[in-house]
Amino acid sequence: MPYSAPLAAIENALKYNADIDAAGATGAFENYDSDLLAPVLEEANKLASNVLSPLNAEGHKHGATLKDGVVTAAPGFKEAYKTFAEGGWIGLPFPEEFGGQALPKSLAIAVMEMMQSANPSFSLNPMLTFGSIEALIEKGTDEQKSTYLEKLISGEWTGAMNLTEPTAGSDVGALKTKAVPNGDGSFAITGQKIFITWGEHDVAENIIQLVLARTPEAPAGSRGISLFLVPKFFVNADGSLGDRNTYQCIGLEEKIGIHASPTCVMEYNGAKGWLIGEENKGLAAMFIMMNAARLQVGLQGVSVCEAATQSAEAYARDRKQGKAPGVEGDAAIIHHPDIRRTLVSMAATTQAARAIVYACAGASDLAEHSKDAEDKAKFKQREDLLVPIAKAWCTDRGCDLANLAVQVYGGMGFMNESEAAQIMLDARINPIYEGTNAIQAMDLVGRKLSSDKGAGMQAIIADIRKTVSDASATGNGHLAIVANRLYSAVSYLEESTEWMLKSMADNRAVALAGATAYLRLAGDVVGGYLLAQSAIRSLEADDDFKTKAITLARVFADETLTQAQGRMEAVSAPANLVEDAMATLFDPIEA
Amino acid sequence: MPYSAPLAAIENALKYNADIDAAGATGAFENYDSDLLAPVLEEANKLASNVLSPLNAEGHKHGATLKDGVVTAAPGFKEAYKTFAEGGWIGLPFPEEFGGQALPKSLAIAVMEMMQSANPSFSLNPMLTFGSIEALIEKGTDEQKSTYLEKLISGEWTGAMNLTEPTAGSDVGALKTKAVPNGDGSFAITGQKIFITWGEHDVAENIIQLVLARTPEAPAGSRGISLFLVPKFFVNADGSLGDRNTYQCIGLEEKIGIHASPTCVMEYNGAKGWLIGEENKGLAAMFIMMNAARLQVGLQGVSVCEAATQSAEAYARDRKQGKAPGVEGDAAIIHHPDIRRTLVSMAATTQAARAIVYACAGASDLAEHSKDAEDKAKFKQREDLLVPIAKAWCTDRGCDLANLAVQVYGGMGFMNESEAAQIMLDARINPIYEGTNAIQAMDLVGRKLSSDKGAGMQAIIADIRKTVSDASATGNGHLAIVANRLYSAVSYLEESTEWMLKSMADNRAVALAGATAYLRLAGDVVGGYLLAQSAIRSLEADDDFKTKAITLARVFADETLTQAQGRMEAVSAPANLVEDAMATLFDPIEA
Repeated sequence: MPYSAPLAAIENALKYNADIDAAGATGAFENYDSDLLAPVLEEANKLASNVLSPLNAEGHKHGATLKDGVVTAAPGFKEAYKTFAEGGWIGLPFPEEFGGQALPKSLAIAVMEMMQSANPSFSLNPMLTFGSIEALIEKGTDEQKSTYLEKLISGEWTGAMNLTEPTAGSDVGALKTKAVPNGDGSFAITGQKIFITWGEHDVAENIIQLVLARTPEAPAGSRGISLFLVPKFFVNADGSLGDRNTYQCIGLEEKIGIHASPTCVMEYNGAKGWLIGEENKGLAAMFIMMNAARLQVGLQGVSVCEAATQSAEAYARDRKQGKAPGVEGDAAIIHHPDIRRTLVSMAATTQAARAIVYACAGASDLAEHSKDAEDKAKFKQREDLLVPIAKAWCTDRGCDLANLAVQVYGGMGFMNESEAAQIMLDARINPIYEGTNAIQAMDLVGRKLSSDKGAGMQAIIADIRKTVSDASATGNGHLAIVANRLYSAVSYLEESTEWMLKSMADNRAVALAGATAYLRLAGDVVGGYLLAQSAIRSLEADDDFKTKAITLARVFADETLTQAQGRMEAVSAPANLVEDAMATLFDPIEA
Repeated sequence: MPYSAPLAAIENALKYNADIDAAGATGAFENYDSDLLAPVLEEANKLASNVLSPLNAEGHKHGATLKDGVVTAAPGFKEAYKTFAEGGWIGLPFPEEFGGQALPKSLAIAVMEMMQSANPSFSLNPMLTFGSIEALIEKGTDEQKSTYLEKLISGEWTGAMNLTEPTAGSDVGALKTKAVPNGDGSFAITGQKIFITWGEHDVAENIIQLVLARTPEAPAGSRGISLFLVPKFFVNADGSLGDRNTYQCIGLEEKIGIHASPTCVMEYNGAKGWLIGEENKGLAAMFIMMNAARLQVGLQGVSVCEAATQSAEAYARDRKQGKAPGVEGDAAIIHHPDIRRTLVSMAATTQAARAIVYACAGASDLAEHSKDAEDKAKFKQREDLLVPIAKAWCTDRGCDLANLAVQVYGGMGFMNESEAAQIMLDARINPIYEGTNAIQAMDLVGRKLSSDKGAGMQAIIADIRKTVSDASATGNGHLAIVANRLYSAVSYLEESTEWMLKSMADNRAVALAGATAYLRLAGDVVGGYLLAQSAIRSLEADDDFKTKAITLARVFADETLTQAQGRMEAVSAPANLVEDAMATLFDPIEA
């Protein structure tokens, strides 16, 4: 089934969860106009559904291929990439001085949601380019900016992130790649990088590698890594392309999914590169890319939720099996109560995931562009808290929903060529890359929650309590129930937050053992809150989507907010027990 | 990592959850002796870990292949099958008169757990043979028994189940395959069957197909299907093999997992077969195979849980990444609190799943062989209730745990050749085949719960309450907490059961919309109960396993029984809402 974007749901989340008009009102986005939303989203949907979606199944079957160091993208990808780049979609959120359109990040997120739903393998390429652009904007020299940014933003060139090495994955500080000064301001980069997404390909004429490496005198660990720009082809003074740099793609990983996204083993043999930002400050630059990428991966989770829901619905309407009341002959399985419950649940979870990612993107826009310093700080704090939740909660839900879609397909879902199987297989990387979801949970608890002693989370909790009152005040019956469930759920989140802060002080290992469960609870409650927020605001605005918004909030409250007390207990109880249980159940562990 | 059976955990579940000595005490199993357990399990472990496990990875990579109607098993499978058959493992639970060993079914289950953990693709072949044997024992004529049973039980021949057709999956009554009398007592079978596990292969010299088909005058639907025996090679009067029957394997499915288990498209072109049991009573015969197969698939869930836990543990011990307190240099990731919490949780869930399947097998033994009629009925009721829970709950947990293992592996888990990826991919079929897990939930609610108005579930609830008292009475601190959590959880199960029974009477569609969530709750509570039972009995017996048994019960109670209230709410609230939500959120559905 071809993908078709849920335009009304997306616009609703942009308006009421991302608060895109508030970003527009800062004056930072000259080109933004509320009336622009619908036409931009419609255009993006055309590209996603007419160009990218039809290539997705073939990409799964055929994959990208490597021969003699040359990576050939899956059939049709090169032409589709050209169409995508020419549409100006990469430049949406970037400054006009480099050819961008200077529109809110939340709008770019909405556009990328569609691309990711339609064809996740394809969309990883621009996703990695975004990160490179952000790093260069923030850390690049004027010369680097003028040489590379315009071509990256136009999509003529793409960017790739070279972080991981065989012994340096989650612990990036362990990397060994060397960067030795050539004496002319450039460095000779030598080492092997693995898991490099779209590190080599034939869809654009140049690739700008951003490579983490270690200079000769660098301190050990993460304080001794620097970021380098290593172009595939050197750029002449007139902007034309010169010689090929000395690195090679020496292997493609055989993965269970995203077959059409080449995952490269890169061998750097004294490749020439230039420092981005300061020496030994590569980690900070990396986190710019990483933070952008984490929200994008969270968005991939949303895209998976949507694709899985659409796929399950289409199959359930089409597949005839068994009888149902009121249906003559064999009934489509969408008539079966369990399938209906599944679809309704999928729809609500999808919108909750969307709301979380869009709210994070909206907070990011306002953190950057609010006129008021206090607002800026408040939204920055909100963004920082929401990034790990968006990344982990939404990608886990993506896998859950993909799994449900397979279940709706029955035996067909286990066939390699089925759409549901592809969605599930492609989705499985999302909880792993850009920091595993356990690392997100540790970031949430160990860094984000601890750095302000829970003030950011308390601010969210206060906003949720305000939403409880607002929901009750609407007089709507569904929203009264939502308000009740949210009222209880937020108390459990608050209690769990207090436990977490205390445990971080008392016994960090215990706290971290509860981190994943805490993030789950936080995502559930924030998701329920954002759906309530959207319902209330849709009702106030008499929005066409209001009945759906109310129903989505109600379904999510009934199914997910009801779990909050149990989830709170699952944070602390197992965490307190884990060391004893480990010692009892498993053989001794050597230090 | 080679698989190694958790012998103590298995023996514990056999003794205290399956109550295998009670089966022995019925006198029905002359060959059974309590002292036999350990040596049988040890021998089975040798086969699983030394013969089957080493072939598993290669089976994933290479798969079975089809050329000109001939299916060649993955490398080494033919030789391994010979070893397996010669060991007499297939005959373990079957009558001595046909060459079996007449041992309790629960012991056979324990043995198969190991085989399934070590190599699920391989083990599907004997699993399907079991079903064929059971159907022949119950429904075969004396001639059929004498011709086929001994060879199936010895493993010289294998059996396959031919149920599904392209338009008859979950709704088997829709099947179209024809069986026309030849006038000599045999029938000519014509039609296409799909998804036939090990339907064709080269590991044994003959294959006995059990095929559902429809005779010319058969009524429509499931009351018009009959079961036929269709041998690959006809059997001469002297027992030697004669001509090849006229059916063909015309295709192998390309699946995402169990690559070494050939999933065949079978084309029957007037193949000669003989009726098993009465005409038009094929459904009853099918359910004999099906019930046996459902418990075996539930067991596959257990096997996946165990394999995933072992794989995650081994990888976490081996993989060095980042720092941990008290460890010099890079620490193995098993030192990280989140990994530890994951492993501990996996261990507890695995034992709970094992306890459920073993308890079901134990109930089956006592249902068949108890001397007391009332006991027989009680255990039959227990078995009937536990079958769908064992099938669905344990296979869902298998997928959960396989997913966690992939997460522990990080990026490596997404690589096709990694052990964790194979476990996850192989496991994904389990919630689908032999009746999807939604069908299990409907069976639990619509058939098992309703048929006795909840009496069987009330009996379980009473047993759980007894266990709550027993756990408190031990004076053990952990078990006191388990008792508390179980006390609450069983009340929620009771409340949910009452809602379900009432809803089945009031509005069947609403009840069925809650069926999957109800099964989940029931599995959680029964799992917690059985772990408590094992802990109490281990403590009473001063068993070596007692400290582990207590810890497993405590971990499961803290993590899973704490969710019971939320899960109860998730049964009724979304179910009540589903019709309205469906109408609001989705486009109209044609009848």
